Amino acid sequence: MTSSPAFDIRPHAPHLQDALKAKIDGKTKPLGALGRLEALALQIGSIQDSLEPRLARPVILVFAGDHGITQDGVSSFPQEVTYQMVLNFLSGGAAINVFARQHGMALRVVDAGVKGEFQPHPELVDAKIGHGTQSFLRMPAMSDVQCETAIARGADLARAEIAAGSNVLGFGEMGIGNTSSAAALMSVLCALQPAQCVGRGTGLDDDGVRRKCAILEQALALHSLDATDPMRALAVFGGFEIAMMAGAMLGAAEGGALLLIDGFIATSALLVASRLHPAIIDYCVFSHRSGEAGHARLLEELKAVPLLDLGMRLGEGTGAAMAYPIVVAAVNFLNQMASFESAGVSESSQG
Amino acid sequence: MTSSPAFDIRPHAPHLQDALKAKIDGKTKPLGALGRLEALALQIGSIQDSLEPRLARPVILVFAGDHGITQDGVSSFPQEVTYQMVLNFLSGGAAINVFARQHGMALRVVDAGVKGEFQPHPELVDAKIGHGTQSFLRMPAMSDVQCETAIARGADLARAEIAAGSNVLGFGEMGIGNTSSAAALMSVLCALQPAQCVGRGTGLDDDGVRRKCAILEQALALHSLDATDPMRALAVFGGFEIAMMAGAMLGAAEGGALLLIDGFIATSALLVASRLHPAIIDYCVFSHRSGEAGHARLLEELKAVPLLDLGMRLGEGTGAAMAYPIVVAAVNFLNQMASFESAGVSESSQG
Repeated sequence: MTSSPAFDIRPHAPHLQDALKAKIDGKTKPLGALGRLEALALQIGSIQDSLEPRLARPVILVFAGDHGITQDGVSSFPQEVTYQMVLNFLSGGAAINVFARQHGMALRVVDAGVKGEFQPHPELVDAKIGHGTQSFLRMPAMSDVQCETAIARGADLARAEIAAGSNVLGFGEMGIGNTSSAAALMSVLCALQPAQCVGRGTGLDDDGVRRKCAILEQALALHSLDATDPMRALAVFGGFEIAMMAGAMLGAAEGGALLLIDGFIATSALLVASRLHPAIIDYCVFSHRSGEAGHARLLEELKAVPLLDLGMRLGEGTGAAMAYPIVVAAVNFLNQMASFESAGVSESSQG
Repeated sequence: MTSSPAFDIRPHAPHLQDALKAKIDGKTKPLGALGRLEALALQIGSIQDSLEPRLARPVILVFAGDHGITQDGVSSFPQEVTYQMVLNFLSGGAAINVFARQHGMALRVVDAGVKGEFQPHPELVDAKIGHGTQSFLRMPAMSDVQCETAIARGADLARAEIAAGSNVLGFGEMGIGNTSSAAALMSVLCALQPAQCVGRGTGLDDDGVRRKCAILEQALALHSLDATDPMRALAVFGGFEIAMMAGAMLGAAEGGALLLIDGFIATSALLVASRLHPAIIDYCVFSHRSGEAGHARLLEELKAVPLLDLGMRLGEGTGAAMAYPIVVAAVNFLNQMASFESAGVSESSQG
């Protein structure tokens, strides 16, 4: 058993639940009429242990890394697109730039292991573990030490954001080939067949999906892991960006932040994190159901019902950013709406 | 056949579709990876006949009216809550105030026919047709003249907003009893049984739902209308707020605005409007699937797939406001994202 990183993640204390529920039910609306916003308000109030929770300095962390497995033809885009897209993030032209700007969220681009060197940039965090992973079709994608280092660096990044005042962190990624890593992790940790986990990624055709699936079957047979050792699975199949994201999620939950989980790859990182520390789930908002085939099933495995279902499958944290206004609305109604009493509105005769 | 109001609503011209599609496909993302945002961008570009559409001065119109049918016990809240909630809107304490503020949307509260008089207020529009409708269990809710007046006033309100610079209008309502009106309209115009249209409204228990359903069956038998005369159905079953909202929707579409359709009652108003002028659908964004039972089926009848499904069932335009950032995101990615060419990102070998 690979050694698991230690994090002190507490499940929510139940003691404010009744008071939060009473505050929500006293608002000028029929009972339950704000649907999932009410559950969100309850969750965020519980995390912050407050009847007046606040969202502070929201930030999206985009972890980028390259994947040895791309040599084996699992993506319709060439590997250098990871590097090119990091430059696109830094010049503000990617979808996540647009959505983060729209929602007033800061953006950090984390080089977890991109092949190639970047010039320093104020929005780029250099946390590079290596120039891309090894192909897990031949050997583990990374060493155990690299995996532990990635987790530790991710956790430190999250702690730094929290120390700077953030209490809501969104998690996204960029890495050509990383739907293959995510699918392999899902297959091992959820004991599912590769075909249940694999999708089109950035746009494979049917032949491409079959090839990707065959590659995963071969790799899974080579390493013959099982669900009992999530750290080992992460080292063998995970990208640097997935491992670092898992560490950042763990660090963020330990620090009491709200976590906005993006799509398929981010959810695979959370899957690993939740197998290490199950209480992390209490801190998560599942932002959307990705159009990537395996995501719906992966969400079910986590008993997670996402907020949005817009057929998006871009990664980068775009789903997390799109869900953020819903989270804000939950906090806003809790803090700003009048109560039946304060507004002088008559209450229901039922319910 | 009751005379139908004349509106000049044009279906979208197709001539920019190819150019919009090419612009969307050239953005730095896999083909189709922004899912429904891409369809929204295409729709808004088509409505505005522009490759660089803009959303200007978004406004939520909340139409309020009282319903004679409340005398017959169809709601768990007393009728005076309509009046009280209008005051709550005007003092900024309702859910729609919170969400409109959050999203930078203006709010107009339209007194279409509330029982009681209001003091003048800058956000209140006095368009009162009467002090509540008659009970459609005994007679038509309103006269044909009242119905036509409500539609004309609604259209004028929409035109005034467009003249003031708005090109995106959200539609919401407040009216104790109005899920009964909406269910009756849906039953007549979609030829469905009342049981397929009726829900809990503001919170009826099972007995209450059965009573509401029985009342609707009785009323439908009394008036024996069919789907061929939507204006007559609107006069017989509609509330003043539903009729005025239908008129505002027609006026907004005629003026080339984007329409954000809220929940069950707003969709029933659109149902009437679309039976009068089917091209209005091109201008609509269906913001959410309400938790009110009949709404899912009503959306299916309109072949509409809503953006959000958050279990909300509050009305007031809250769903429309919650969907607005998604609409903004669609316009923003179209206008702000880099293209493969401009960002120097390699394109896919497939697709």
